[in-house]
Amino acid sequence: MTAHELERHSDNLVQRQQLTWAAPLRLESGAQLGPLTLAYETYGTLNARRDNAILLLHALSGDAHAAGRYHINDRKPGWWDPMVGPGRAFDTERYFVICSNVIGGCQGSSGPASRNPATGKAYAASFPIITIGDMVAAQTRLIDALGIARLHAVAGGSMGGFQALEWATAHPERVARAIVLASAAHSAPQTIAWNSIGRRAIMADPRWRGGDYYGHEPPSDGLAVARMIGHVTYVSDTALERKFGRSLQHGTTPAFTLEPEYRIESYLDYQGQSFNERFDANSYLYITKAMDYWDLAQRYGSLDTAFARSSAAYLLLSFTSDWLYPSAESQRMADALVRAQCAVEHVELHSDAGHDAFLIDYAAQVPIVGDFLR
Amino acid sequence: MTAHELERHSDNLVQRQQLTWAAPLRLESGAQLGPLTLAYETYGTLNARRDNAILLLHALSGDAHAAGRYHINDRKPGWWDPMVGPGRAFDTERYFVICSNVIGGCQGSSGPASRNPATGKAYAASFPIITIGDMVAAQTRLIDALGIARLHAVAGGSMGGFQALEWATAHPERVARAIVLASAAHSAPQTIAWNSIGRRAIMADPRWRGGDYYGHEPPSDGLAVARMIGHVTYVSDTALERKFGRSLQHGTTPAFTLEPEYRIESYLDYQGQSFNERFDANSYLYITKAMDYWDLAQRYGSLDTAFARSSAAYLLLSFTSDWLYPSAESQRMADALVRAQCAVEHVELHSDAGHDAFLIDYAAQVPIVGDFLR
Repeated sequence: MTAHELERHSDNLVQRQQLTWAAPLRLESGAQLGPLTLAYETYGTLNARRDNAILLLHALSGDAHAAGRYHINDRKPGWWDPMVGPGRAFDTERYFVICSNVIGGCQGSSGPASRNPATGKAYAASFPIITIGDMVAAQTRLIDALGIARLHAVAGGSMGGFQALEWATAHPERVARAIVLASAAHSAPQTIAWNSIGRRAIMADPRWRGGDYYGHEPPSDGLAVARMIGHVTYVSDTALERKFGRSLQHGTTPAFTLEPEYRIESYLDYQGQSFNERFDANSYLYITKAMDYWDLAQRYGSLDTAFARSSAAYLLLSFTSDWLYPSAESQRMADALVRAQCAVEHVELHSDAGHDAFLIDYAAQVPIVGDFLR
Repeated sequence: MTAHELERHSDNLVQRQQLTWAAPLRLESGAQLGPLTLAYETYGTLNARRDNAILLLHALSGDAHAAGRYHINDRKPGWWDPMVGPGRAFDTERYFVICSNVIGGCQGSSGPASRNPATGKAYAASFPIITIGDMVAAQTRLIDALGIARLHAVAGGSMGGFQALEWATAHPERVARAIVLASAAHSAPQTIAWNSIGRRAIMADPRWRGGDYYGHEPPSDGLAVARMIGHVTYVSDTALERKFGRSLQHGTTPAFTLEPEYRIESYLDYQGQSFNERFDANSYLYITKAMDYWDLAQRYGSLDTAFARSSAAYLLLSFTSDWLYPSAESQRMADALVRAQCAVEHVELHSDAGHDAFLIDYAAQVPIVGDFLR
């Protein structure tokens, strides 16, 4: 690569950063977590008034790497790259964009694989149970450290939407706008069911060893099953039909074996396997638990009371084929926001990409988010 | 219990029967299965003209015990009891009702737990792969043995519907009516995905031992996970919301633990556990494989060609909240049946019970089936 080419790419090259605080964070459960480390990335420049910051919040399997590439040869950019950059929805020529990994995660923030200062070994299952509120409480330290009093916006899809809603209601003075995609004000029993089955698969894997598998073979079968379940819930039956149909992986007649034969099966196997290369099974347990506890109405008595705390303007985006976080749930939030006299726009986008549409269908999403921010 | 009370109950007491044929059955894969045993039950009386027989076909986890009780103290009757009996949809005062367990099963028919005559031990994973066509081919022997040339009707829900469709198209001269509930003309990629993840969970359980676990601890964790996945796909999110909501199993505040805490989780655990008490994990592998292979159009080139073979009248029932076998799939079959000049009635019933509605919502279903049969 020539110096010229390198220069062309250089505005997309990003670095993961980390901050650590010695003071423990008091969690919703009453437990303390400390020292506390958060991994994060930033894109663009904080202006002199420090009022152009946008915080991106990631979903269950996400991380702080929302945009750009670490190395020019990286095969893929960050998970929301088409949304972040010069002229994009999160326009880095206008905004200082931050993405923070969640606590409980395994991508540089305090999580079950981190060193427990009390023992000198990995926390494993002694890591304290966390909530969406705890994730956001940890992020307030990062926003403080960056010298930002009030965020121009918080934005996230799925569990990232939970965090955006938590930010806007628990820290209303710090959030001017909340963008919530393919998300919900609570985890429905069906969501809890899928998460719980995934946890069961991990914890039933004998290599889970009560969580104490660091330095040993990890529970990769359990995590693969959990991821495969999750993956099917993230896509629509229409998309599966279009992409895979009933095609066999090899040939045109079945092999008559108990092993996977259809392309959809090989694809899911691959999803399970590649997830194991980048995710820690214990983090999957802790983060899905945090999702299950999520219930904004319960915290404040009702959704109306929760939103009445907030002075943010809300953009809710939902997708027609998302059966995990259906549009009706976004409309329920929109109705409560109207009753709470918050500015709210709910847009239901047509898509056959299912829940994952917020990570796939950018054509309609980019201009709506861009317009809302201006 | 007095003699009088016993007499009152006696018309509901049933017995499981079995027939074994020495001659091997040639399977679609080319393999042979023999001797061949089928477990079945009958209710009512075959008339002199032998033309009042109805064959009931069960779903994945079903068995031959469709109605009545084996013992007066049985807690539950057979799986379709409200449909079968004097004055019921399958009126035992008019019809001779038969229900046959499928091959591959574990409730008295030839399956992986059966003795392999070549080794003297259980087949386990050496049991041959079977198809819906093979299940029905085995049932033709039973219907022959009962001296029935032509069935007044075949009827089944879910995988039972697959068999009903197979009967009506592969053996058109033997079927006058086909009743197909909550079913489909093929397994969609999403169905294959769920089945495949369930199989993966079973086969990843170290106690599966390549299928060779008879006489040892069975792979109960894997089978539990498979069943829990299945169970969530059989119900609607609305039904889960209504039955469980976000209620905790104990108290009103979370315990902040990695273990199950919500009622929906305890319920799924119970489903997984109780399924282990009555079902063999290897049967789950073989029967879900047979489901995955199911594709009526592929066999004959198109659905129209398949149905053009048939002279039966069809009743298709679908349920609004069934997202596993959605109404659109029944309508696709109905359209093909019309084009093939078959008599067909497709009724979409309003229900929030999901796919399981055909085992739950009898009020609307019973009169429609009863009327269709007369």
